[in-house]
Amino acid sequence: MIVEVIAVGTELLLGQITNTNASTIGSALAEQGFDAHFQQVVGDNEARVAESIRVGIERSDAVIITGGIGPTQDDLTREAVCLATGLEMEFSDEYADHLRGWWERRGREMPESNLQQAEHPAGAELLTNPKGTAPGLMIEHEDTLIFCVPGVPAEMEHLLHEEVIPRLSAASGEKAVLASRLLRTWGRSESDIADSLDDLYRSSTNPSLAFLASGGEIKIRITAKADDRASALKLIEPMETEVRSRMGSVLFGTDDETIERVIFRLLTELDYTIAAAESMTGGLVTAALTSLPGSSAMTRGGIVAYHSELKERLLGVSDASTVVDLETAEEMARGGRELLGADVVVSVTGSAGPEPLEKPVGTMVIGVSTPEHTQAKEMRMVGDRERVRTYAVTSALHLIRLALIGKWWGR
Amino acid sequence: MIVEVIAVGTELLLGQITNTNASTIGSALAEQGFDAHFQQVVGDNEARVAESIRVGIERSDAVIITGGIGPTQDDLTREAVCLATGLEMEFSDEYADHLRGWWERRGREMPESNLQQAEHPAGAELLTNPKGTAPGLMIEHEDTLIFCVPGVPAEMEHLLHEEVIPRLSAASGEKAVLASRLLRTWGRSESDIADSLDDLYRSSTNPSLAFLASGGEIKIRITAKADDRASALKLIEPMETEVRSRMGSVLFGTDDETIERVIFRLLTELDYTIAAAESMTGGLVTAALTSLPGSSAMTRGGIVAYHSELKERLLGVSDASTVVDLETAEEMARGGRELLGADVVVSVTGSAGPEPLEKPVGTMVIGVSTPEHTQAKEMRMVGDRERVRTYAVTSALHLIRLALIGKWWGR
Repeated sequence: MIVEVIAVGTELLLGQITNTNASTIGSALAEQGFDAHFQQVVGDNEARVAESIRVGIERSDAVIITGGIGPTQDDLTREAVCLATGLEMEFSDEYADHLRGWWERRGREMPESNLQQAEHPAGAELLTNPKGTAPGLMIEHEDTLIFCVPGVPAEMEHLLHEEVIPRLSAASGEKAVLASRLLRTWGRSESDIADSLDDLYRSSTNPSLAFLASGGEIKIRITAKADDRASALKLIEPMETEVRSRMGSVLFGTDDETIERVIFRLLTELDYTIAAAESMTGGLVTAALTSLPGSSAMTRGGIVAYHSELKERLLGVSDASTVVDLETAEEMARGGRELLGADVVVSVTGSAGPEPLEKPVGTMVIGVSTPEHTQAKEMRMVGDRERVRTYAVTSALHLIRLALIGKWWGR
Repeated sequence: MIVEVIAVGTELLLGQITNTNASTIGSALAEQGFDAHFQQVVGDNEARVAESIRVGIERSDAVIITGGIGPTQDDLTREAVCLATGLEMEFSDEYADHLRGWWERRGREMPESNLQQAEHPAGAELLTNPKGTAPGLMIEHEDTLIFCVPGVPAEMEHLLHEEVIPRLSAASGEKAVLASRLLRTWGRSESDIADSLDDLYRSSTNPSLAFLASGGEIKIRITAKADDRASALKLIEPMETEVRSRMGSVLFGTDDETIERVIFRLLTELDYTIAAAESMTGGLVTAALTSLPGSSAMTRGGIVAYHSELKERLLGVSDASTVVDLETAEEMARGGRELLGADVVVSVTGSAGPEPLEKPVGTMVIGVSTPEHTQAKEMRMVGDRERVRTYAVTSALHLIRLALIGKWWGR
């Protein structure tokens, strides 16, 4: 089944935003085994959007249009679909009521322009969009499926996975299903991992291996295709076992088991509470430790001692004038356990730049203190301020895990 | 002059890489005042690339094709241009020698496959590519200009600015440039703003109005086209003045002036330091206050009092058992100023879900305490945990601004 993505928005043509929706949808479709031959981008112009839709339904089995279904005057996708298909525009009183309710729940009056979101080409199925006010749309036109989804990535992604892909799969009648297993690693480079799995990579196409690098973690994806999910998973099994044995403790999680989830599982097993004492990461580590539902059960909180006076007064650091220092990080972690009353505290100090401190920009020291042991580690990341901070957060979370499983570094 | 970008590469369709070239070229063209109506993406398939080129030269005055001119088997753009235009393929002995020289200078023997980079549609002008081995191409076909540039961003950008744009400008003879002004607002919905500017939106095409919603903020973009930048800005002026007067203090920043920058400008003017005392946002507000280079000059740090015991012991909250409470938020803000030694402290408490506290999930109370005044505000956001937290952070930053400019809410 050939699926074509059409992204609507003048801001895309002007390069004010990058078309990440197209790549998100593209990879999701590829994973499901759908084919893609073309993508289009078109500005906020009714006639041109209609032309793009005509071209798309001409050469593809399904078209996914993202953007242009919001409440403002330059949201023209609904009209363009009518223009391209000759369908009449209909109005859904039911959805209009839903919209009024949405605004009422926020104790505000609904601007009239919002009502255009209750309009849709005749016969369209409205796809619920819990993250926004514009519903997705599915129109069956001749033998083509036309989907309209919002341009806001979070709303688009939800509709893509919950509504669009299931309907595409149903329509395609494709029996073969794709199953995949995601093995999450941290601590080895992508090329290093690729090298050590090269023989598996070359010797097998089903299951197949893929490597995804993101934010310091390397994910190994094993994908298999079979008549049903059970058989696909059976194909994956032996390769997974082999990869696991080669990766060892570098492998920290499976599928949606993020490092945060792993940490919370370990904390629960050990019946420990946790907190963070940060400077360079400015609160991002604590934010990660409070990102999961139910984290209040284990996370006490955190202190951001950005100013050195706070490091000394609140965390009892003996000399906070040296920022990038193993001793300072260990004192911060110990002091944090006292101040915040937590069993485990991770500390992060260092220089995110732009101006270097006593060590080069990107140098960071991360400390972990548990009832058993306290230890710090110096690391370095090259890149801008945001990149350095992100890397520091990921590293801090993974050093927490290593400490909790007793694999203290360089010990 | 209408210019269309065609990006060639199956990896783009599969979402393995994002089409940043399209946005780079798009913004460069817009700056020069060229019009863009469509963009295309097509996989590494000769017939389909040719089809995209045909569509492009049909509806545009110039087509810029990026990708598919390298040395490997799946580089098919040159062939596709011939297929689309009916031009013969020619071979440049001169460029072949250049290629051999390129490899010799690196003391390596040239793989034969490299020679296809010396091929080009008859009559094409070869554009020097100092950053790689594949030359850019310019073909004048009937009354359309066809440019071929590499897909490697660094090579593409060099050719774009050094070779492509100058030739486009020469061909168009057009001097017009585009200028735009971004007005950033917070506190009113996109549709509400669109309604109140509807007459301006409909009455004017140059300058034109557009609305961009992101993370709780609504950006209003005014774009004008004129012979030179100064005249374009002059066209923008009256519309900007009108929009500013209608938006009032809802408008907080211009162009790249984010809320964080605005806060730091205000803090500098007032010679105040700042810190945060958070629970539901778990450190994200402090992270925002430390996100800018040089923020250490004004940001003391922050406390994440996630556990109620910390709210009481460290922040002196009288009764932290009620989480979503104006009194609690004000106590947190006052207590934060003492604990963290900051002139201004913002506090955030509430319920990010999934389990509701005394108020529905998504209810939050944000407090600001300055040397002049302390006040809290209750707000609500519907959505998942991440959305609620993001909304809370944005709201906290904007309430800081309102407090700093003396516009305390409901006073």
